[in-house]
Amino acid sequence: MSQAVSSPLYAAIDLGSNSFHMLVVRHIDGSIQTMAKIKRKVRLAAGLDENNALSQEAMQRGWDCLSLFAERLQDIPKQNIRIVGTATLRTATNVEVFLTKAKQILGYPIEVISGEEEAATIYKGVAHTSGGIGRRLVVDIGGASTELIIGEGFDAKALTSLKMGCVTWLERHFKDRQLNAHNFNQAIQAAKDTLQPILEQYTQLGWDVCVGASGTVQALQEIMLAQGMDEVITHAKLKRLQKQAMLADHLEELEIEGLTLERALVFPSGLSILIAIFELLNIDAMTLAGGALREGLLYEMVDELRQDDIRARTIASVQTRYQLDNEYGEQVARLAQQMLASCGGSEWIEEPQAETLLISAAKLHEIGLTIDFKKGGEHSAYLLQHLDLPGFTRAQKHCLAELTRRYREHLTSLPEQHALSGTSAKRLLRLLRLAVLLTHRRTPELEPDIHLTANGDQLTLSIDTTWLQANPLTAAELEIEVHRQSDIGWPLVIGS
Amino acid sequence: MSQAVSSPLYAAIDLGSNSFHMLVVRHIDGSIQTMAKIKRKVRLAAGLDENNALSQEAMQRGWDCLSLFAERLQDIPKQNIRIVGTATLRTATNVEVFLTKAKQILGYPIEVISGEEEAATIYKGVAHTSGGIGRRLVVDIGGASTELIIGEGFDAKALTSLKMGCVTWLERHFKDRQLNAHNFNQAIQAAKDTLQPILEQYTQLGWDVCVGASGTVQALQEIMLAQGMDEVITHAKLKRLQKQAMLADHLEELEIEGLTLERALVFPSGLSILIAIFELLNIDAMTLAGGALREGLLYEMVDELRQDDIRARTIASVQTRYQLDNEYGEQVARLAQQMLASCGGSEWIEEPQAETLLISAAKLHEIGLTIDFKKGGEHSAYLLQHLDLPGFTRAQKHCLAELTRRYREHLTSLPEQHALSGTSAKRLLRLLRLAVLLTHRRTPELEPDIHLTANGDQLTLSIDTTWLQANPLTAAELEIEVHRQSDIGWPLVIGS
Repeated sequence: MSQAVSSPLYAAIDLGSNSFHMLVVRHIDGSIQTMAKIKRKVRLAAGLDENNALSQEAMQRGWDCLSLFAERLQDIPKQNIRIVGTATLRTATNVEVFLTKAKQILGYPIEVISGEEEAATIYKGVAHTSGGIGRRLVVDIGGASTELIIGEGFDAKALTSLKMGCVTWLERHFKDRQLNAHNFNQAIQAAKDTLQPILEQYTQLGWDVCVGASGTVQALQEIMLAQGMDEVITHAKLKRLQKQAMLADHLEELEIEGLTLERALVFPSGLSILIAIFELLNIDAMTLAGGALREGLLYEMVDELRQDDIRARTIASVQTRYQLDNEYGEQVARLAQQMLASCGGSEWIEEPQAETLLISAAKLHEIGLTIDFKKGGEHSAYLLQHLDLPGFTRAQKHCLAELTRRYREHLTSLPEQHALSGTSAKRLLRLLRLAVLLTHRRTPELEPDIHLTANGDQLTLSIDTTWLQANPLTAAELEIEVHRQSDIGWPLVIGS
Repeated sequence: MSQAVSSPLYAAIDLGSNSFHMLVVRHIDGSIQTMAKIKRKVRLAAGLDENNALSQEAMQRGWDCLSLFAERLQDIPKQNIRIVGTATLRTATNVEVFLTKAKQILGYPIEVISGEEEAATIYKGVAHTSGGIGRRLVVDIGGASTELIIGEGFDAKALTSLKMGCVTWLERHFKDRQLNAHNFNQAIQAAKDTLQPILEQYTQLGWDVCVGASGTVQALQEIMLAQGMDEVITHAKLKRLQKQAMLADHLEELEIEGLTLERALVFPSGLSILIAIFELLNIDAMTLAGGALREGLLYEMVDELRQDDIRARTIASVQTRYQLDNEYGEQVARLAQQMLASCGGSEWIEEPQAETLLISAAKLHEIGLTIDFKKGGEHSAYLLQHLDLPGFTRAQKHCLAELTRRYREHLTSLPEQHALSGTSAKRLLRLLRLAVLLTHRRTPELEPDIHLTANGDQLTLSIDTTWLQANPLTAAELEIEVHRQSDIGWPLVIGS
């Protein structure tokens, strides 16, 4: 029996303009496991006076928070700690006063990083936690700065940090705390003016997908989910939320389903900035990134986690942590891929991410067995729905969960999900089930020679009859599978 | 990153008098993980004629089933396979005819084991999968034999195999398929007559707990859970089920909530035997064993799994498989135990198993973090509820789940569970939460000197004020915890 160990802890602290955050994780077999999150809304940016000097009160709020962090930091190896300050500390004229005492409290130095470095670190955090192909635009709206990055894979091609944020925009454009059209228009227009200088460069570089990071975007996604919308942020939804916000006259009266109290104060200002970005850069859709600045800091410390294909790293890590039979996973994935190709590949299932989802489901479908054999599919679904899977969006995790929930035995129709069309998801499930069934002997040499063809939703499986006679268990199960698929209107025929 | 591997498979096949079963598992870090279960209701015993010869039809049903098993067996290393036959094959005069062809089909020899060997193997299966202290009586009602064993730890002190089973009793006492008092009385009396010869020996040896294994007892537990009863089988409940059964005139009309179709036929006969055992041996209560014959066969093959303390092995295995921080688990467990002792130990919490549950919860509470930090407690509960945890009953797993669900943050009252009294469970939860909170720095040297005392449900925690000043995060959390416990009526006071 191998020994479980205390793996070393890592901490990333970010002294932001709105909140101070501390993230404590450990590194296990290629995964980051969160052990503690501590957050205090210090609102440092609100303490800058007209001369950009931090008020004594704001500094004291910061120091109080740091003394809480300090207790936890003592137990973490020095080389595993990174503490950075961002926009407000870049701006504050009396920053040395704050830093001297802060260092004393923490026992560790604080790096005040430049806007460009912040943008680069955010991009690393996004790139390490979000999958997908093509060029991406990353938007991170902080308390006193907003970072915009264009990158591809792990390479950032444009890094910008702008001096606008949800705290500064609150103080500047919603100072009277009125949620009226005038304030919103002012805030949106000012954000557009701030963005103007980068417009040409960013439009020329272009992007395929857009992801948003940090508080404002996260709050938006929570609201959308609470209100029963899907996870994709669009301009129409943002304008709908602006209208909802304007139903309240004052910020103090703001009530939006899914908006938490702690985000409420900076919500209208953050929303204004995001609307400006959508309108000026002509963005169609944005999804939430899996991580940003703090994750970037962590991934910089943990060398082993630098790998190009996030999803491959995630799958490999889950296979290792749950001790899955990865040779068997490969076998199922290979057969499923082969069947997808013989059914017509992307002619049969349009979405480019479908094949990755099929392969991922094939490699992970048995994860539920690590909990219990009975209801194994249910357990697989629970785990894939809830595990932190860098590279997969929430909708993709949901899709993987619903596929693996049904990998064997009884077959029920798939519920609605937002990663693939209903038809595509159904087709993937049929391939997954057939691939699992035909490989149940778990040895590639013992797999039957098969050929699967599709005519729309009509599947025909050609399989050697001699093999079927020699494998009566598979033959019996295949016969049951024909009925299961056909019974819910998915015709399947066995030929020879 | 360590490599996930294909761990070797093991198979145990039991050619029983009612069903043939095949169990395929793999061995991972001290745990048995089920990979496949195949079962066919062959009802071999029903094929014995008056001269104890197996009919051609019954043998054919058996061979058909074995050809399904054979397909799966080919992929498993020879030394990892055990195939045994039991009562009907012991009895059949033409057993060689059956075995010769069976061996041909399977490609492996079949051992027809003696009744005593069957009893010994069942006891091993029970001892390896069930915790608890003291002497235990094990009852396993098969198709054509019933095994009764008394043992302690891994030592069986009395091994008996009686020639009565749910199939033979069905053919003998419910031949007309009538569910009337006459048939039940006959079946119960005949079972008592069969048990009579062992009565004195078993009564003299005595036992502290009684566990039941295999189909009949499992069907009973499923019925009881479906009908909203707890998991403990008592004589009163058995009589109630007999009455429910007698509401139907014929076996074919039998309808009992929670009874599956495949168990229905042999349910009244199995129930009669169990009632006879309860009445003659004067049994108070019986719980379901975690395993029996097939598990015994497996544990005999997997050497590494032979360990005395089942629960310790289970905890260690889970810690390893989920890569928990077991040094930290030890630390929390130690502090929780120390607090339990200073509160009065068994004077404060009566149930002898309470301390084990507290220690287990302390060692496993972070398991949910391996899924995700957010809702970590919920995930811990899900895993502990559903994981196969040899040595813990279903009720104990439920109790562990409800404790760990609440190990941090918001505190809600515990729901009803059947492992401990409500008061005891509440007290354990309070100790667990305090132990987690006070050890959050994860280093024994940094733990505060504390002393916890109890006056009924009033807890007083004495803690060094200098330490509290030096650890403001813990101090803040402790203050919140005082409110959380007190708010739901569990008074907690901090002294110094």
